[in-house]
Amino acid sequence: MAETGRGGKRPPVVRCRDPAAVPPSRPMPTQDDIRAAADRIAPHIRRTPVIRLDPADTGLAVPVTLKLEQLQVTGSFKPRGAFNRILSAEVPEAGVIAASGGNHGLAVAHAAKTLKMNAEIYVPGPTPEAKKKRIMDTGAWVYVGGKVYEHARVAAEARAAETGALMVHAYDQEEVLAGQGTIGLELEQQAPDLTHLLVAVGGGGLYGGIASWYQDRIHMVLVEPEACPTMFVAVMTGAPTDAPTDGVAADSLGARRIGSLAFATMKQWGGNSVVLSDDSILKAQRWLWDRLRVVAEPGGATALAALLGGAWKPPKDAHVGVVICGANCDPGTVSG
Amino acid sequence: MAETGRGGKRPPVVRCRDPAAVPPSRPMPTQDDIRAAADRIAPHIRRTPVIRLDPADTGLAVPVTLKLEQLQVTGSFKPRGAFNRILSAEVPEAGVIAASGGNHGLAVAHAAKTLKMNAEIYVPGPTPEAKKKRIMDTGAWVYVGGKVYEHARVAAEARAAETGALMVHAYDQEEVLAGQGTIGLELEQQAPDLTHLLVAVGGGGLYGGIASWYQDRIHMVLVEPEACPTMFVAVMTGAPTDAPTDGVAADSLGARRIGSLAFATMKQWGGNSVVLSDDSILKAQRWLWDRLRVVAEPGGATALAALLGGAWKPPKDAHVGVVICGANCDPGTVSG
Repeated sequence: MAETGRGGKRPPVVRCRDPAAVPPSRPMPTQDDIRAAADRIAPHIRRTPVIRLDPADTGLAVPVTLKLEQLQVTGSFKPRGAFNRILSAEVPEAGVIAASGGNHGLAVAHAAKTLKMNAEIYVPGPTPEAKKKRIMDTGAWVYVGGKVYEHARVAAEARAAETGALMVHAYDQEEVLAGQGTIGLELEQQAPDLTHLLVAVGGGGLYGGIASWYQDRIHMVLVEPEACPTMFVAVMTGAPTDAPTDGVAADSLGARRIGSLAFATMKQWGGNSVVLSDDSILKAQRWLWDRLRVVAEPGGATALAALLGGAWKPPKDAHVGVVICGANCDPGTVSG
Repeated sequence: MAETGRGGKRPPVVRCRDPAAVPPSRPMPTQDDIRAAADRIAPHIRRTPVIRLDPADTGLAVPVTLKLEQLQVTGSFKPRGAFNRILSAEVPEAGVIAASGGNHGLAVAHAAKTLKMNAEIYVPGPTPEAKKKRIMDTGAWVYVGGKVYEHARVAAEARAAETGALMVHAYDQEEVLAGQGTIGLELEQQAPDLTHLLVAVGGGGLYGGIASWYQDRIHMVLVEPEACPTMFVAVMTGAPTDAPTDGVAADSLGARRIGSLAFATMKQWGGNSVVLSDDSILKAQRWLWDRLRVVAEPGGATALAALLGGAWKPPKDAHVGVVICGANCDPGTVSG
């Protein structure tokens, strides 16, 4: 059903939308929810710029517009959802709590500091030092343990049940999706003629929010590493299902399974699922520096990798958007 | 006369425009020249984005808009001037020739490759390896020798006299100024309410071009390292005069003296001259990564350093623009 980034035989591109799909059973953000989120988070969020690349830049026949969301506060898109979730809730004395491979935890910790709240952040051991340090620098309590995001999530849920702190989920909450959806709202103003939009998928909050904004007005392409292919596995099996959580982008895209909201979004609004190799992700990361002087972490370069490496081919007359969604890495890792 | 970045006694801020100044004796670009340059170079140049920073980002009381010109083709603003000079001329069989601390040479080499011309680039020995390698990668002939830009310039002039190649000056040609002035044209569209604009100064091509665009519609602030203060020395002495060429930004800002066109621009349109320490430049470079995930070389962070370090203080109700003008460094140098 889904397109793979490997050479040789390429399965046909199949849109995953099921026209007979029933409406999702869980709440999904509407365009009005996303507009309200944009107003709510505006004092705390940057309107990130776009840059248009011509065929001479990319070697492709179509124009490409990058949304430089790695320039967002805290270095990833995550504060959009984190601020929206926190500002939509009554936050108890215990404050907020989150589990994260790093970017979401940093966003929640930053939001809590900005809003003068207590924060506890659970991160797995392999989270890059650059991310741990940034979270600790906010003054949040940081708990490091387990090997993958899922371990941290389980520990954080148990802790939240004890303390009553407000859980800010990394992707599977409506307010989080609405926050991430504000990227779509901005991007449609900045590049109104986009026909396709590539986003990286881990738990699917970024995709779910943006697709909820655009609905059927754009063709979404969901890009994942072969080493942590949550949406691909869900599409293949017909339901959110545990997937491997490995590879160069696991710290930002390594959810154990796709979020239920993102999966419902996929059933409602569709998109292509594309998986690709870690090697092609690292090549895109180096290309971003070499050709554009943009530093992105591997997860932040994953969507672009599908385009540069040819795992997904734009149709003629397309204007392709790509979200560059994070840069919380050591910049030295993109040299050479 | 000029403002310094050192602590303690600060001389009053004095605009350097002389209302009785005679018009410059050398040709200066007009707004029409700059519009024509924009049309001429458009197929080869990126419209670089801006990002607006709020007081929460900078700790300043006024908004700041950064022009992210380090995202330009070749990683600096220089191709604007290089393409405009080359496309305005009849280029002989011998091709084009330039001397450069690196960024201009890379721009000329890139333009020559794009336009299928021969190029010879003279660079001083201390030019960073990242810049030398990028120039060589274009296929240009690269001559490395001497210690500073001025040595390379003298050698290139001698070679041009032999071969008849078209000299593309790093800053002191009208067509080069007109090309750099297209930054002003773009920026006025992107942020029409700017009141002040900070630019780094080496030979003064960037300043000269942008000031020729804005004329009296904006207040320019010319920022230089204390270690290579060409405009500051010229303002102090009343004429372009040899200055030291040292410090962390010498490879991009280390002209021996200010260009005659830039000096004439200063006499006509004015601005504040600000000098600051290498340390404050390196701090601004790290701030750009730490707070914004932007990598800039020291010369590219120099204008911002005047604002962040307080060497220049914006008046109340200002909306300050800053040109981030280059990123041809090893990205690892901005870590931590």
